[in-house]
Amino acid sequence: MATERHVRHFQEELDDLKARLLEMGGLAEDRVRLAVRALTDRDHALVDRVLTNDAAINQLHIEVDDRCFKLLALHQPMAVDLRSIVSAVKINTDLERVGDLAVNIAEAVARYLQHPPVKELIDIPRMASIAQDMLRDALDAYVRRDMALAQDVLHRDDELDLLKTLVFRELLGHMLRDPGTIEPSLDLILVSRHLERIGDHATNIAEDVIFMVSAKDVRHQPEH
Amino acid sequence: MATERHVRHFQEELDDLKARLLEMGGLAEDRVRLAVRALTDRDHALVDRVLTNDAAINQLHIEVDDRCFKLLALHQPMAVDLRSIVSAVKINTDLERVGDLAVNIAEAVARYLQHPPVKELIDIPRMASIAQDMLRDALDAYVRRDMALAQDVLHRDDELDLLKTLVFRELLGHMLRDPGTIEPSLDLILVSRHLERIGDHATNIAEDVIFMVSAKDVRHQPEH
Repeated sequence: MATERHVRHFQEELDDLKARLLEMGGLAEDRVRLAVRALTDRDHALVDRVLTNDAAINQLHIEVDDRCFKLLALHQPMAVDLRSIVSAVKINTDLERVGDLAVNIAEAVARYLQHPPVKELIDIPRMASIAQDMLRDALDAYVRRDMALAQDVLHRDDELDLLKTLVFRELLGHMLRDPGTIEPSLDLILVSRHLERIGDHATNIAEDVIFMVSAKDVRHQPEH
Repeated sequence: MATERHVRHFQEELDDLKARLLEMGGLAEDRVRLAVRALTDRDHALVDRVLTNDAAINQLHIEVDDRCFKLLALHQPMAVDLRSIVSAVKINTDLERVGDLAVNIAEAVARYLQHPPVKELIDIPRMASIAQDMLRDALDAYVRRDMALAQDVLHRDDELDLLKTLVFRELLGHMLRDPGTIEPSLDLILVSRHLERIGDHATNIAEDVIFMVSAKDVRHQPEH
């Protein structure tokens, strides 16, 4: 009876942990979306909102780590439960970095908005949308322990990489033709790199999910 | 008697784990040093060595994670031992990223070497040396559970940040004066950003050490 209660308690704690990670993922994703909208809408107030508003995500970052340690110490989980909690520690780190990258995007946007627009923005919002989808799906895959969805996230990284290269080449062309666009072009290049890194974090999460479910390490394999 | 043997066995395993992390840190640091030397010596062969030679570090990355899971599952450690092992998982991730950043530096150097030199390189080797020292000291702090050394690493991040800004401003000046330098200047800016991120990883490790020793979370505090 006591053991059964112990197990139920553990599962509830694990569900709470997952809910917190999803909440953190939602916050991180929101902040990326706002930072990119600040760019497309040339909205200074949105830039400021992203730059000043990271207390909630930082608080969650500490809380999730704390919950993971308590679960490990009090319940001494095994097998897939152990892997879920260690994965949560890693995912927590990835989500916190995504929050930081949203700030880095907002910083680049703040500088970009001091100049006239360099070009119509098509590829960068596209990159943002891919990166956000990857992040959301990677977290869903974690919560549902869904290997197929995690695998699918891994494959989308190439598209992001390709778009980053396209953005770079186009902006390099602008800079060479008109040195007046050098500074704002540099900031757009930075934004595209930050978005690519958000995709990298989603990839890390997807790899953790595959390890959690299958105990199989898919990192450092040539197929991705 | 059995318990004593169990404890000694655990401590030996933990020492092995630390030795593996140090080995991995040494490899990561070597690769950063080679990538930056390839830049200063304009040495194409060194570039190739960094680009092709990451099997050892990737192998260690998987092995360290594996050891951490086994230690958690078999010994169910508590308190500082538990925190050491979870910290090892995080540090392992940071070191693997440092290895990736060495590759990113080598890729930028490969492109840079296709052009005549833009400028004398002083600040970038200086950045590399600071980042490498931070990384080495953060790992020493982990192995020796040395809070003071970890705190010291945290403070050195500002210097790296300042140098990155100096490098950026100087190269922007070159690009504006002579558009022929835009492409190689962009690659030097990338190298300086990669080095700054290596410093960020050293900072992450130092924060993990402080948490491991004191159980106190120093992240997201205004003083650093």
